[in-house]
Amino acid sequence: MDELRDELKVIAHLYSDFPEKFGVPRQSGIVDDTVGTIVFEPEYRSPDALKGLEGFSHIWLLWRFDIRPSENFKATVRPPRLGGNETMGVFATRSPFRPNAIGLSSVRLLGIEDSDEGKVLIVAGADLRNFTAIYDIKPYIKYTDSHPDAECGFADEPPEETLSVNISDELSDIIRPGKKDTLLRILSLDPRPRYIEDPLREYGLSFAGMNVKFTVEDNVLTVTEITLRDDYEEL
Amino acid sequence: MDELRDELKVIAHLYSDFPEKFGVPRQSGIVDDTVGTIVFEPEYRSPDALKGLEGFSHIWLLWRFDIRPSENFKATVRPPRLGGNETMGVFATRSPFRPNAIGLSSVRLLGIEDSDEGKVLIVAGADLRNFTAIYDIKPYIKYTDSHPDAECGFADEPPEETLSVNISDELSDIIRPGKKDTLLRILSLDPRPRYIEDPLREYGLSFAGMNVKFTVEDNVLTVTEITLRDDYEEL
Repeated sequence: MDELRDELKVIAHLYSDFPEKFGVPRQSGIVDDTVGTIVFEPEYRSPDALKGLEGFSHIWLLWRFDIRPSENFKATVRPPRLGGNETMGVFATRSPFRPNAIGLSSVRLLGIEDSDEGKVLIVAGADLRNFTAIYDIKPYIKYTDSHPDAECGFADEPPEETLSVNISDELSDIIRPGKKDTLLRILSLDPRPRYIEDPLREYGLSFAGMNVKFTVEDNVLTVTEITLRDDYEEL
Repeated sequence: MDELRDELKVIAHLYSDFPEKFGVPRQSGIVDDTVGTIVFEPEYRSPDALKGLEGFSHIWLLWRFDIRPSENFKATVRPPRLGGNETMGVFATRSPFRPNAIGLSSVRLLGIEDSDEGKVLIVAGADLRNFTAIYDIKPYIKYTDSHPDAECGFADEPPEETLSVNISDELSDIIRPGKKDTLLRILSLDPRPRYIEDPLREYGLSFAGMNVKFTVEDNVLTVTEITLRDDYEEL
Protein backbone atom coordinates (compact mmCIF):
# COMPACT_ATOMS: atom_id res chain seq x y z
CA MET A 1 0.00 0.00 0.00
CA ASP A 2 0.95 3.51 -0.66
CA GLU A 3 1.74 5.95 2.08
CA LEU A 4 -0.35 8.99 1.33
CA ARG A 5 1.68 11.52 3.26
CA ASP A 6 5.38 12.15 3.36
CA GLU A 7 7.57 14.44 5.37
CA LEU A 8 10.06 16.98 4.16
CA LYS A 9 13.10 18.43 5.86
CA VAL A 10 14.23 22.02 5.41
CA ILE A 11 17.89 21.83 4.35
CA ALA A 12 18.69 25.55 3.97
CA HIS A 13 17.28 29.07 3.83
CA LEU A 14 17.63 31.71 1.18
CA TYR A 15 18.45 35.26 2.28
CA SER A 16 17.25 37.89 -0.18
CA ASP A 17 16.49 41.60 -0.51
CA PHE A 18 12.73 40.94 -0.25
CA PRO A 19 11.64 40.97 3.40
CA GLU A 20 7.98 40.59 2.39
CA LYS A 21 6.12 38.64 -0.23
CA PHE A 22 4.61 41.80 -1.72
CA GLY A 23 6.78 43.05 -4.57
CA VAL A 24 8.63 39.81 -5.23
CA PRO A 25 8.64 39.18 -8.99
CA ARG A 26 6.36 36.30 -9.82
CA GLN A 27 8.83 34.05 -11.62
CA SER A 28 12.49 33.56 -10.96
CA GLY A 29 14.85 35.15 -13.43
CA ILE A 30 12.48 37.94 -14.48
CA VAL A 31 14.59 40.38 -12.51
CA ASP A 32 17.83 38.62 -13.10
CA ASP A 33 20.08 40.81 -10.99
CA THR A 34 18.47 40.14 -7.61
CA VAL A 35 21.12 38.36 -5.60
CA GLY A 36 20.51 35.91 -2.77
CA THR A 37 22.54 33.80 -0.37
CA ILE A 38 21.70 30.21 0.52
CA VAL A 39 22.78 29.15 4.02
CA PHE A 40 22.56 25.49 4.92
CA GLU A 41 21.07 24.19 8.12
CA PRO A 42 23.82 22.87 10.44
CA GLU A 43 22.97 19.21 9.70
CA TYR A 44 23.53 19.73 5.94
CA ARG A 45 26.46 22.13 6.21
CA SER A 46 29.10 19.94 4.63
CA PRO A 47 31.55 21.15 1.98
CA ASP A 48 31.55 17.59 0.61
CA ALA A 49 27.86 17.90 -0.24
CA LEU A 50 28.75 20.64 -2.77
CA LYS A 51 31.64 18.83 -4.48
CA GLY A 52 31.24 19.25 -8.24
CA LEU A 53 28.54 21.91 -7.98
CA GLU A 54 31.05 24.64 -8.93
CA GLY A 55 30.94 23.32 -12.51
CA PHE A 56 27.25 24.20 -12.91
CA SER A 57 26.07 27.64 -13.98
CA HIS A 58 22.46 27.07 -12.87
CA ILE A 59 20.78 25.17 -10.06
CA TRP A 60 17.24 24.20 -9.15
CA LEU A 61 15.74 25.24 -5.87
CA LEU A 62 12.81 23.35 -4.43
CA TRP A 63 11.39 25.66 -1.79
CA ARG A 64 8.46 26.16 0.49
CA PHE A 65 5.65 28.56 -0.36
CA ASP A 66 4.74 30.82 2.53
CA ILE A 67 1.14 29.89 2.00
CA ARG A 68 -0.22 26.98 3.99
CA PRO A 69 -2.12 24.69 1.62
CA SER A 70 -5.83 24.74 2.31
CA GLU A 71 -7.32 21.48 3.57
CA ASN A 72 -9.72 21.28 0.64
CA PHE A 73 -8.42 21.06 -2.88
CA LYS A 74 -9.19 24.09 -5.05
CA ALA A 75 -9.01 23.12 -8.72
CA THR A 76 -8.64 26.59 -10.22
CA VAL A 77 -6.67 29.78 -9.59
CA ARG A 78 -6.66 33.28 -11.10
CA PRO A 79 -3.17 33.90 -12.48
CA PRO A 80 -1.99 37.51 -12.00
CA ARG A 81 -0.67 37.64 -15.57
CA LEU A 82 -4.21 37.13 -16.87
CA GLY A 83 -5.37 40.17 -14.96
CA GLY A 84 -6.69 38.19 -12.03
CA ASN A 85 -10.08 37.72 -13.67
CA GLU A 86 -9.64 34.55 -15.68
CA THR A 87 -9.44 31.12 -14.07
CA MET A 88 -6.92 28.44 -14.97
CA GLY A 89 -6.45 24.93 -13.67
CA VAL A 90 -4.02 24.89 -10.79
CA PHE A 91 -1.80 22.31 -12.55
CA ALA A 92 -1.55 24.65 -15.57
CA THR A 93 -0.02 27.37 -13.36
CA ARG A 94 2.87 27.90 -10.97
CA SER A 95 0.49 29.37 -8.39
CA PRO A 96 1.34 28.73 -4.74
CA PHE A 97 -2.25 27.68 -4.05
CA ARG A 98 -1.71 24.01 -4.88
CA PRO A 99 -1.92 20.70 -3.01
CA ASN A 100 1.74 20.69 -1.98
CA ALA A 101 3.45 23.93 -1.03
CA ILE A 102 6.57 23.35 -3.13
CA GLY A 103 7.93 25.99 -5.47
CA LEU A 104 10.43 25.30 -8.26
CA SER A 105 12.93 27.92 -9.45
CA SER A 106 16.06 27.79 -11.53
CA VAL A 107 18.67 30.34 -10.48
CA ARG A 108 22.15 31.26 -11.63
CA LEU A 109 24.93 30.03 -9.37
CA LEU A 110 27.30 32.99 -9.03
CA GLY A 111 29.64 31.37 -6.55
CA ILE A 112 30.26 29.21 -3.51
CA GLU A 113 31.77 31.17 -0.64
CA ASP A 114 33.05 30.55 2.85
CA SER A 115 31.16 32.14 5.72
CA ASP A 116 30.74 31.85 9.47
CA GLU A 117 27.92 29.46 8.64
CA GLY A 118 29.98 27.21 6.39
CA LYS A 119 29.92 27.20 2.60
CA VAL A 120 27.10 29.35 1.22
CA LEU A 121 25.76 29.61 -2.32
CA ILE A 122 25.48 33.02 -3.98
CA VAL A 123 22.69 32.98 -6.55
CA ALA A 124 21.08 35.46 -8.96
CA GLY A 125 17.50 35.62 -10.14
CA ALA A 126 16.08 34.04 -7.00
CA ASP A 127 12.94 36.09 -6.71
CA LEU A 128 12.02 34.65 -3.36
CA ARG A 129 11.19 36.20 -0.05
CA ASN A 130 13.92 36.55 2.54
CA PHE A 131 14.36 33.41 4.67
CA THR A 132 12.57 31.15 2.19
CA ALA A 133 12.91 27.55 3.35
CA ILE A 134 14.74 25.32 0.83
CA TYR A 135 13.90 21.61 0.52
CA ASP A 136 16.36 20.62 -2.17
CA ILE A 137 19.14 21.91 -4.41
CA LYS A 138 19.74 20.05 -7.67
CA PRO A 139 22.11 20.80 -10.54
CA TYR A 140 20.52 22.16 -13.73
CA ILE A 141 21.19 19.58 -16.45
CA LYS A 142 20.52 21.13 -19.80
CA TYR A 143 20.12 17.95 -21.83
CA THR A 144 17.12 16.94 -19.75
CA ASP A 145 15.88 20.28 -18.30
CA SER A 146 16.19 22.74 -21.18
CA HIS A 147 13.46 22.87 -23.83
CA PRO A 148 13.90 26.21 -25.60
CA ASP A 149 11.19 25.35 -28.15
CA ALA A 150 8.55 24.34 -25.62
CA GLU A 151 5.04 25.65 -26.19
CA CYS A 152 3.85 27.39 -23.07
CA GLY A 153 0.20 28.23 -23.55
CA PHE A 154 -0.80 31.43 -21.82
CA ALA A 155 2.72 31.80 -20.37
CA ASP A 156 4.56 31.73 -23.68
CA GLU A 157 6.16 35.15 -23.25
CA PRO A 158 7.70 36.65 -20.12
CA PRO A 159 5.61 39.31 -18.41
CA GLU A 160 6.36 42.74 -19.81
CA GLU A 161 7.07 45.93 -17.98
CA THR A 162 3.64 47.45 -17.85
CA LEU A 163 4.11 50.69 -15.88
CA SER A 164 6.22 53.79 -16.39
CA VAL A 165 7.87 54.72 -13.15
CA ASN A 166 7.84 58.34 -12.05
CA ILE A 167 10.33 59.21 -9.31
CA SER A 168 11.68 62.61 -8.21
CA ASP A 169 15.44 63.24 -8.08
CA GLU A 170 15.11 63.81 -4.35
CA LEU A 171 13.61 60.36 -3.74
CA SER A 172 15.94 58.77 -6.27
CA ASP A 173 18.94 59.96 -4.26
CA ILE A 174 17.73 58.02 -1.23
CA ILE A 175 17.94 54.64 -3.02
CA ARG A 176 20.76 52.47 -1.71
CA PRO A 177 23.84 52.30 -3.97
CA GLY A 178 23.58 49.65 -6.66
CA LYS A 179 19.89 48.97 -6.05
CA LYS A 180 18.27 51.59 -8.27
CA ASP A 181 17.96 49.66 -11.53
CA THR A 182 16.57 46.61 -9.82
CA LEU A 183 14.06 48.61 -7.80
CA LEU A 184 12.81 50.45 -10.89
CA ARG A 185 12.45 47.18 -12.78
CA ILE A 186 10.47 45.62 -9.93
CA LEU A 187 8.15 48.62 -9.83
CA SER A 188 7.70 48.69 -13.61
CA LEU A 189 6.51 45.04 -13.53
CA ASP A 190 3.50 46.22 -11.49
CA PRO A 191 3.71 44.56 -8.11
CA ARG A 192 0.07 45.35 -7.22
CA PRO A 193 -2.41 42.56 -6.75
CA ARG A 194 -4.06 42.54 -10.18
CA TYR A 195 -7.66 42.72 -9.05
CA ILE A 196 -7.30 46.18 -7.51
CA GLU A 197 -7.60 49.40 -9.49
CA ASP A 198 -7.65 52.40 -7.18
CA PRO A 199 -5.59 55.50 -8.07
CA LEU A 200 -5.89 56.89 -4.55
CA ARG A 201 -4.51 53.83 -2.86
CA GLU A 202 -0.94 54.00 -1.58
CA TYR A 203 1.02 50.78 -1.79
CA GLY A 204 4.20 49.91 0.07
CA LEU A 205 6.88 47.39 -0.65
CA SER A 206 10.18 46.59 0.99
CA PHE A 207 13.30 45.90 -1.00
CA ALA A 208 16.97 45.93 -0.03
CA GLY A 209 16.38 47.69 3.27
CA MET A 210 14.11 50.34 1.82
CA ASN A 211 10.42 50.93 2.42
CA VAL A 212 9.00 52.27 -0.82
CA LYS A 213 5.54 53.82 -1.15
CA PHE A 214 3.78 54.47 -4.43
CA THR A 215 0.50 55.11 -6.20
CA VAL A 216 -0.60 53.99 -9.67
CA GLU A 217 -2.84 55.78 -12.13
CA ASP A 218 -3.21 55.27 -15.89
CA ASN A 219 -0.19 52.95 -16.13
CA VAL A 220 2.08 55.44 -14.38
CA LEU A 221 3.55 54.42 -11.04
CA THR A 222 4.57 57.38 -8.89
CA VAL A 223 6.98 56.80 -6.01
CA THR A 224 5.72 58.88 -3.07
CA GLU A 225 8.16 57.98 -0.29
CA ILE A 226 11.35 56.04 0.33
CA THR A 227 12.65 55.41 3.83
CA LEU A 228 15.70 53.40 4.80
CA ARG A 229 15.25 50.56 7.25
CA ASP A 230 17.99 50.31 9.86
CA ASP A 231 17.66 46.51 10.14
CA TYR A 232 19.17 46.01 6.69
CA GLU A 233 22.20 43.80 6.26
CA GLU A 234 23.75 43.85 2.82
CA LEU A 235 23.97 40.34 1.35
CA MET B 1 9.91 29.94 14.44
CA ASP B 2 10.34 27.69 11.51
CA GLU B 3 8.65 24.32 11.29
CA LEU B 4 11.35 21.88 10.35
CA ARG B 5 9.16 19.20 8.80
CA ASP B 6 6.36 19.42 6.31
CA GLU B 7 3.96 16.89 4.89
CA LEU B 8 3.33 16.05 1.28
CA LYS B 9 0.28 14.57 -0.37
CA VAL B 10 0.42 12.19 -3.30
CA ILE B 11 -1.81 13.70 -6.00
CA ALA B 12 -1.40 11.10 -8.76
CA HIS B 13 0.50 8.05 -9.96
CA LEU B 14 2.39 7.49 -13.18
CA TYR B 15 1.83 4.20 -15.00
CA SER B 16 4.78 3.22 -17.16
CA ASP B 17 6.33 0.28 -18.97
CA PHE B 18 8.93 -0.15 -16.22
CA PRO B 19 7.61 -2.44 -13.47
CA GLU B 20 10.96 -2.35 -11.66
CA LYS B 21 13.54 0.29 -11.01
CA PHE B 22 16.29 -1.73 -12.69
CA GLY B 23 16.57 -0.70 -16.34
CA VAL B 24 14.84 2.67 -16.02
CA PRO B 25 16.96 5.26 -17.84
CA ARG B 26 18.62 7.54 -15.33
CA GLN B 27 17.29 10.87 -16.59
CA SER B 28 13.98 11.68 -18.15
CA GLY B 29 13.99 12.26 -21.87
CA ILE B 30 17.04 10.12 -22.60
CA VAL B 31 14.75 7.52 -24.09
CA ASP B 32 12.19 9.95 -25.39
CA ASP B 33 9.65 7.48 -26.73
CA THR B 34 8.76 5.81 -23.44
CA VAL B 35 5.13 6.67 -22.84
CA GLY B 36 3.40 6.91 -19.50
CA THR B 37 -0.06 7.71 -18.16
CA ILE B 38 -0.71 9.92 -15.15
CA VAL B 39 -3.84 9.04 -13.20
CA PHE B 40 -4.99 11.44 -10.49
CA GLU B 41 -6.04 10.37 -7.03
CA PRO B 42 -9.82 10.72 -6.60
CA GLU B 43 -9.47 13.89 -4.50
CA TYR B 44 -7.56 15.68 -7.29
CA ARG B 45 -9.47 14.21 -10.24
CA SER B 46 -11.03 17.43 -11.49
CA PRO B 47 -11.10 18.44 -15.15
CA ASP B 48 -11.02 22.07 -13.99
CA ALA B 49 -7.59 21.52 -12.43
CA LEU B 50 -6.19 20.90 -15.93
CA LYS B 51 -7.78 23.92 -17.65
CA GLY B 52 -5.14 25.60 -19.80
CA LEU B 53 -2.64 22.74 -19.52
CA GLU B 54 -3.44 21.60 -23.09
CA GLY B 55 -1.49 24.66 -24.35
CA PHE B 56 1.78 23.39 -22.88
CA SER B 57 4.07 20.97 -24.69
CA HIS B 58 6.06 20.04 -21.58
CA ILE B 59 5.28 19.64 -17.89
CA TRP B 60 7.27 19.18 -14.72
CA LEU B 61 6.70 16.20 -12.51
CA LEU B 62 7.71 16.29 -8.87
CA TRP B 63 7.71 12.68 -7.80
CA ARG B 64 8.72 10.38 -4.99
CA PHE B 65 11.88 8.34 -5.12
CA ASP B 66 11.32 4.72 -4.21
CA ILE B 67 14.23 5.02 -1.85
CA ARG B 68 13.50 5.95 1.74
CA PRO B 69 15.89 8.71 2.79
CA SER B 70 18.34 7.51 5.39
CA GLU B 71 18.06 9.11 8.80
CA ASN B 72 21.63 10.40 8.67
CA PHE B 73 22.71 12.81 5.98
CA LYS B 74 25.22 11.39 3.52
CA ALA B 75 27.08 14.25 1.84
CA THR B 76 28.41 12.38 -1.18
CA VAL B 77 27.20 9.90 -3.77
CA ARG B 78 28.84 7.93 -6.58
CA PRO B 79 27.08 8.91 -9.83
CA PRO B 80 26.64 5.98 -12.26
CA ARG B 81 27.79 8.13 -15.19
CA LEU B 82 31.20 8.54 -13.55
CA GLY B 83 31.58 4.78 -13.43
CA GLY B 84 30.43 4.51 -9.84
CA ASN B 85 33.94 5.07 -8.50
CA GLU B 86 34.14 8.84 -8.15
CA THR B 87 32.29 10.73 -5.43
CA MET B 88 30.31 13.92 -5.97
CA GLY B 89 28.44 16.12 -3.55
CA VAL B 90 24.83 15.05 -3.30
CA PHE B 91 23.64 18.58 -4.21
CA ALA B 92 25.74 18.42 -7.41
CA THR B 93 23.80 15.35 -8.56
CA ARG B 94 20.25 14.19 -9.21
CA SER B 95 20.87 11.07 -7.12
CA PRO B 96 17.87 9.74 -5.17
CA PHE B 97 20.02 9.42 -2.04
CA ARG B 98 19.32 12.96 -0.80
CA PRO B 99 17.67 14.54 2.24
CA ASN B 100 14.22 14.73 0.67
CA ALA B 101 13.02 11.95 -1.62
CA ILE B 102 11.75 14.24 -4.38
CA GLY B 103 12.66 13.73 -8.01
CA LEU B 104 12.26 16.35 -10.73
CA SER B 105 11.58 15.45 -14.37
CA SER B 106 10.38 17.38 -17.37
CA VAL B 107 8.28 15.29 -19.75
CA ARG B 108 6.45 15.93 -23.02
CA LEU B 109 2.70 16.23 -22.69
CA LEU B 110 1.26 14.17 -25.56
CA GLY B 111 -2.36 14.59 -24.63
CA ILE B 112 -5.11 14.76 -22.04
CA GLU B 113 -7.59 11.90 -22.37
CA ASP B 114 -10.79 10.75 -20.77
CA SER B 115 -10.71 7.46 -18.89
CA ASP B 116 -12.70 5.51 -16.31
CA GLU B 117 -10.50 7.30 -13.76
CA GLY B 118 -11.22 10.79 -15.03
CA LYS B 119 -8.92 12.90 -17.18
CA VAL B 120 -5.47 11.35 -17.50
CA LEU B 121 -2.25 12.83 -18.87
CA ILE B 122 -0.34 10.95 -21.56
CA VAL B 123 3.35 11.84 -21.35
CA ALA B 124 6.55 10.85 -23.15
CA GLY B 125 10.08 10.62 -21.81
CA ALA B 126 8.97 9.85 -18.27
CA ASP B 127 11.63 7.39 -17.36
CA LEU B 128 10.05 6.47 -14.07
CA ARG B 129 9.02 3.21 -12.53
CA ASN B 130 5.43 2.05 -12.86
CA PHE B 131 3.17 3.47 -10.16
CA THR B 132 5.56 6.30 -9.25
CA ALA B 133 3.84 8.62 -6.79
CA ILE B 134 3.47 12.20 -8.08
CA TYR B 135 3.53 15.17 -5.71
CA ASP B 136 3.03 17.97 -8.19
CA ILE B 137 2.49 18.79 -11.84
CA LYS B 138 3.60 22.21 -13.04
CA PRO B 139 3.63 23.71 -16.54
CA TYR B 140 7.05 24.05 -18.17
CA ILE B 141 7.62 27.77 -18.71
CA LYS B 142 10.48 28.26 -21.11
CA TYR B 143 11.32 31.87 -20.26
CA THR B 144 12.17 30.87 -16.69
CA ASP B 145 12.97 27.12 -16.98
CA SER B 146 14.97 26.84 -20.20
CA HIS B 147 18.69 27.63 -20.17
CA PRO B 148 20.12 26.02 -23.31
CA ASP B 149 23.56 27.56 -22.69
CA ALA B 150 23.88 26.39 -19.09
CA GLU B 151 27.20 24.92 -18.03
CA CYS B 152 26.60 21.54 -16.49
CA GLY B 153 29.91 20.34 -15.06
CA PHE B 154 30.33 16.59 -15.23
CA ALA B 155 26.81 16.23 -16.70
CA ASP B 156 27.35 18.52 -19.68
CA GLU B 157 26.57 15.88 -22.29
CA PRO B 158 23.84 13.25 -22.24
CA PRO B 159 25.01 9.73 -21.50
CA GLU B 160 25.98 7.93 -24.68
CA GLU B 161 24.97 4.51 -25.82
CA THR B 162 27.87 2.48 -24.59
CA LEU B 163 27.01 -1.11 -25.51
CA SER B 164 26.34 -2.85 -28.81
CA VAL B 165 23.31 -5.06 -28.44
CA ASN B 166 23.44 -8.58 -29.81
CA ILE B 167 20.06 -10.29 -30.19
CA SER B 168 19.07 -13.34 -32.26
CA ASP B 169 16.24 -13.11 -34.78
CA GLU B 170 14.38 -15.70 -32.77
CA LEU B 171 14.44 -13.59 -29.60
CA SER B 172 13.81 -10.39 -31.55
CA ASP B 173 10.54 -11.84 -32.86
CA ILE B 174 9.25 -12.25 -29.29
CA ILE B 175 9.45 -8.48 -28.56
CA ARG B 176 6.04 -6.88 -28.29
CA PRO B 177 4.98 -4.81 -31.33
CA GLY B 178 6.24 -1.23 -31.23
CA LYS B 179 8.59 -1.83 -28.29
CA LYS B 180 11.71 -3.05 -30.07
CA ASP B 181 13.49 0.27 -30.71
CA THR B 182 12.90 1.47 -27.17
CA LEU B 183 14.06 -1.80 -25.62
CA LEU B 184 17.25 -1.83 -27.69
CA ARG B 185 17.97 1.78 -26.74
CA ILE B 186 17.48 1.02 -23.04
CA LEU B 187 19.84 -1.95 -23.29
CA SER B 188 22.45 0.03 -25.24
CA LEU B 189 22.56 2.63 -22.44
CA ASP B 190 23.91 -0.07 -20.14
CA PRO B 191 21.38 -0.57 -17.38
CA ARG B 192 23.83 -2.47 -15.16
CA PRO B 193 24.86 -1.04 -11.84
CA ARG B 194 28.19 0.53 -12.75
CA TYR B 195 30.30 -1.04 -10.04
CA ILE B 196 29.83 -4.59 -11.32
CA GLU B 197 31.95 -6.12 -14.11
CA ASP B 198 31.23 -9.82 -14.42
CA PRO B 199 30.84 -11.35 -17.91
CA LEU B 200 29.29 -14.51 -16.47
CA ARG B 201 26.55 -12.71 -14.62
CA GLU B 202 23.09 -12.80 -16.12
CA TYR B 203 21.00 -9.67 -15.59
CA GLY B 204 17.27 -9.32 -15.92
CA LEU B 205 15.08 -6.34 -16.56
CA SER B 206 11.37 -5.90 -17.11
CA PHE B 207 9.98 -3.57 -19.73
CA ALA B 208 6.57 -3.36 -21.40
CA GLY B 209 5.45 -6.73 -20.14
CA MET B 210 8.64 -8.54 -21.09
CA ASN B 211 11.24 -10.13 -18.87
CA VAL B 212 14.56 -9.71 -20.63
CA LYS B 213 17.76 -11.50 -19.61
CA PHE B 214 21.20 -10.57 -20.83
CA THR B 215 24.94 -10.81 -20.25
CA VAL B 216 27.62 -8.19 -20.96
CA GLU B 217 31.22 -8.73 -22.06
CA ASP B 218 33.65 -6.31 -23.72
CA ASN B 219 30.95 -3.68 -24.36
CA VAL B 220 28.68 -6.17 -26.08
CA LEU B 221 25.34 -6.91 -24.48
CA THR B 222 23.88 -10.25 -25.49
CA VAL B 223 20.19 -10.88 -24.95
CA THR B 224 19.82 -14.45 -23.66
CA GLU B 225 16.11 -14.76 -23.01
CA ILE B 226 12.85 -12.86 -23.48
CA THR B 227 9.62 -14.04 -21.90
CA LEU B 228 6.26 -12.31 -22.04
CA ARG B 229 4.52 -11.49 -18.77
CA ASP B 230 0.81 -12.19 -18.80
CA ASP B 231 0.08 -9.38 -16.31
CA TYR B 232 0.89 -6.71 -18.90
CA GLU B 233 -1.65 -4.06 -19.73
CA GLU B 234 -0.77 -1.86 -22.66
CA LEU B 235 -0.81 1.81 -21.66
